[in-house]
Amino acid sequence: MKLEHIGIAVKDLAASNELFASLLGRAHYKIEAVESEGVSTSFFMAGESKIELLEASRADSPIAKFIEKRGEGIHHLAFEVEDIEAEMKRLQAEGYRLLNETPKRGADNKLICFLHPKSSNGVLVELCQSIKD
Amino acid sequence: MKLEHIGIAVKDLAASNELFASLLGRAHYKIEAVESEGVSTSFFMAGESKIELLEASRADSPIAKFIEKRGEGIHHLAFEVEDIEAEMKRLQAEGYRLLNETPKRGADNKLICFLHPKSSNGVLVELCQSIKD
Repeated sequence: MKLEHIGIAVKDLAASNELFASLLGRAHYKIEAVESEGVSTSFFMAGESKIELLEASRADSPIAKFIEKRGEGIHHLAFEVEDIEAEMKRLQAEGYRLLNETPKRGADNKLICFLHPKSSNGVLVELCQSIKD
Repeated sequence: MKLEHIGIAVKDLAASNELFASLLGRAHYKIEAVESEGVSTSFFMAGESKIELLEASRADSPIAKFIEKRGEGIHHLAFEVEDIEAEMKRLQAEGYRLLNETPKRGADNKLICFLHPKSSNGVLVELCQSIKD
């Protein structure tokens, strides 16, 4: 599996876009709202992988809850897979807990599934598969 | 800057090596102790970037303190730079706090410097430069 992106929870997307632009030496290349997850996102390239900044767009967003509990910081790691349903089955058989039983639509034109951090050393892992039009 | 690796703090390196091998579908390719940091590390390839698992090798290791405070999980993001001293100067001028004033020797034959997470949205950022022999 290839590391596709790292999701970072932030309080203020505009301020963090400036901060990561100065850190990485380049600006974000897109902004995208994901209504179903209650987040506004921005993306930066960092080599082959991306940095995804996530700001809560409503109070019950998982990102709002994460920041309330742990503060700003790294939220998840996303790995690219060719066939998300096959990987979900494989990992479930190996004892990983899935947070959604069927793939759902995420940012950046992808089908996604999260694994419970308890089954992967406290790391929230996302599997993602590009949607081919 | 390219994402070079993601550091993940774990309690039991042997158990976590098995867990990440089943997640990523491949075994770790090396184990390395970094005495100066009090850690035992293992590395996995995940596309262009690496996953570095970190287990404390003594009680006063930064990894032991991290796990005590936050539990297992993602510890840092490392970005590869060509000239670490130039990047350290540039980022310091832009308001980032450096955790070490001069580059130090890290795992994987690299010179490294950490930025304070308070200056980068709660993310512990490592800069790393490969040592050319």
